[in-house]
Amino acid sequence: MRFHTRKWVKPEDLNPNRSLFGGKLLAWIDEEAALYSVVQLENPHVVTKFMSEINFMASAKQGDIVEIGIDVVKFGNTSLILRCEVRNMMTHEKIITVDNITMVNLDEEGKPKPHGKKKIEFVKDRLAILNK
Amino acid sequence: MRFHTRKWVKPEDLNPNRSLFGGKLLAWIDEEAALYSVVQLENPHVVTKFMSEINFMASAKQGDIVEIGIDVVKFGNTSLILRCEVRNMMTHEKIITVDNITMVNLDEEGKPKPHGKKKIEFVKDRLAILNK
Amino acid sequence: MRFHTRKWVKPEDLNPNRSLFGGKLLAWIDEEAALYSVVQLENPHVVTKFMSEINFMASAKQGDIVEIGIDVVKFGNTSLILRCEVRNMMTHEKIITVDNITMVNLDEEGKPKPHGKKKIEFVKDRLAILNK
Amino acid sequence: MRFHTRKWVKPEDLNPNRSLFGGKLLAWIDEEAALYSVVQLENPHVVTKFMSEINFMASAKQGDIVEIGIDVVKFGNTSLILRCEVRNMMTHEKIITVDNITMVNLDEEGKPKPHGKKKIEFVKDRLAILNK
Amino acid sequence: MRFHTRKWVKPEDLNPNRSLFGGKLLAWIDEEAALYSVVQLENPHVVTKFMSEINFMASAKQGDIVEIGIDVVKFGNTSLILRCEVRNMMTHEKIITVDNITMVNLDEEGKPKPHGKKKIEFVKDRLAILNK
Amino acid sequence: MRFHTRKWVKPEDLNPNRSLFGGKLLAWIDEEAALYSVVQLENPHVVTKFMSEINFMASAKQGDIVEIGIDVVKFGNTSLILRCEVRNMMTHEKIITVDNITMVNLDEEGKPKPHGKKKIEFVKDRLAILNK
Repeated sequence: MRFHTRKWVKPEDLNPNRSLFGGKLLAWIDEEAALYSVVQLENPHVVTKFMSEINFMASAKQGDIVEIGIDVVKFGNTSLILRCEVRNMMTHEKIITVDNITMVNLDEEGKPKPHGKKKIEFVKDRLAILNK
Repeated sequence: MRFHTRKWVKPEDLNPNRSLFGGKLLAWIDEEAALYSVVQLENPHVVTKFMSEINFMASAKQGDIVEIGIDVVKFGNTSLILRCEVRNMMTHEKIITVDNITMVNLDEEGKPKPHGKKKIEFVKDRLAILNK
Repeated sequence: MRFHTRKWVKPEDLNPNRSLFGGKLLAWIDEEAALYSVVQLENPHVVTKFMSEINFMASAKQGDIVEIGIDVVKFGNTSLILRCEVRNMMTHEKIITVDNITMVNLDEEGKPKPHGKKKIEFVKDRLAILNK
Repeated sequence: MRFHTRKWVKPEDLNPNRSLFGGKLLAWIDEEAALYSVVQLENPHVVTKFMSEINFMASAKQGDIVEIGIDVVKFGNTSLILRCEVRNMMTHEKIITVDNITMVNLDEEGKPKPHGKKKIEFVKDRLAILNK
Repeated sequence: MRFHTRKWVKPEDLNPNRSLFGGKLLAWIDEEAALYSVVQLENPHVVTKFMSEINFMASAKQGDIVEIGIDVVKFGNTSLILRCEVRNMMTHEKIITVDNITMVNLDEEGKPKPHGKKKIEFVKDRLAILNK
Repeated sequence: MRFHTRKWVKPEDLNPNRSLFGGKLLAWIDEEAALYSVVQLENPHVVTKFMSEINFMASAKQGDIVEIGIDVVKFGNTSLILRCEVRNMMTHEKIITVDNITMVNLDEEGKPKPHGKKKIEFVKDRLAILNK
């Protein structure tokens, strides 16, 4: 699994008990899944359709750094299924795992559209092509 | 199901495709579950432990109003299991349903603590007791 | 008075003295008045025109839950006059009361427009009509 | 009246009708009144106690700049009464006027405390004293 | 140098070490430079092109008030060069100085456009003209 | 240069001209520099002391994804000098480069403290040690 985005837990990210607000974490995951899909499917019109069950295994406190990892489970026809893991870089604990986040590729009218992708591509490879 | 909190979908709640950002919706649900539990368990130290799978059935656009409903599924010993439904008041569509949100009642050190509650109480009943 | 929206007082809602920031509270009230009006007038183009004097009777601290109630004072021709009360669910104190919040119903060009409403309607009644 | 703080109306400040969200404006006014009082009373423990009626005379749209002015109406014993005016620098329209914003000076326990001030002081005069 | 905008350092403005988050400060400076330019150039299409080096000399803590001052260094043909200073009104310390912030005046397509301005104008002078 | 954190440009990140607000970008860079330093120096008490000049070479619009890269320029005694580059993943343009961001390692009282680090460490290597 590749970990990209990192977040520094700031006062505005806390719940009133002073641990990382779960809702903030879910928002971070959803954003990471969306932008991962936008990059892979090369289409900005992508929406979250489904998230499998979420188990909050650990938390984080102010000043901790969390790291969000995304893996591809499967390229569907109009969908992309992702797996997500969030871990606390300070305590090395796993905070959350979501095994299935289903993203759907949309056309201009918001209908599902085949994306034609079969495997993970790296942006640098695309750049290589662009530079020829 | 009782619907309490309502949200007006504002520009800051949108994803770049101009529909309600899924992550924002998840944050709203988590907050609603937390405050519902705090009120029922009469304890501010409550955390989200688990959310069952989430199906995004419809969305909302800027200016729409969404309404968040919570029901109790079960009072556990240290936990409270909730069901949540979010609907769009403008289109009368169901946006999301989460069948099991497990909240855990904590003591001062953050350990699970029995809450002693067996059924839903209404704040006005508590007020009645307070006013005797 | 019916109380709908509830807010959990989080670190980002505090003033530097660590009590609920009054400006945040006013923003919550304005939003609640607006969305209440949008639902009642069945028109998303509604603006706040006037608020009567505001007396801050109590405050709230981090982790408290506040509840915002709205009542209709009067249906005008192009306006809707509301009364608002905010209370702290933890301390059972009244935080603020605003006796007159005047909302105006607008047409597409932003001019006042008669809304044709005379009394409070409940969304479920409208749904009943829609389902016939 | 002296105008200090200026705000650039950004997408996050809009209501769903794309004009400046009234609640945001009220939050800006409350913050400006608070910080004006903190500076004048040389005490960070200051709270808003009362706001007289608020008339929304004009609005602002994205990209407009609004300017917030504060005047002292009266120095009370434990209070400071302010007047506030907000205007749109692009259209030269007055957006809002609040004739009486009553701020209260608090001690460490949150009780009203005499502030001993009788008139507006300018920070540069205080600096002059400090530099002697 | 004229100081306009003032900010009250709130919990949401802090970094996890509980001092003013540098990134927030930079965002405040950029906003102040932009709105100063919009007012002077009488054009809302203005962008930040360059900032000279930034030295963080002091910080601020929750409850402090910071004041942002802007001076014009030079009116270019399509640009406006500003100097910015931020100081802490509680401690009288200078927090940051930026000697060159270059703003560029744009036309409708986002290309640099001569702004025709040679010196600072005060809004009240423009109002005087408007009122003739 | 290693690129970690990615941001999806959302409505709340725009300036009124609907391009990415420069101040937001600076805040993202400062946060990324801070958390990179916290991880490398294994100390949460780290502050930004200096940023060299900033040239805004390109912008980003709503829906674009930007990627923030950090490199170490030099390990000082109490400092860590970083280089930062931000690029737009949609247009492959370089948005901004900052050649010197000086972070300082602090002790509990906020005084500079030697950090004892000489080179970049990867978290997985530390984990390896922890797991022995």
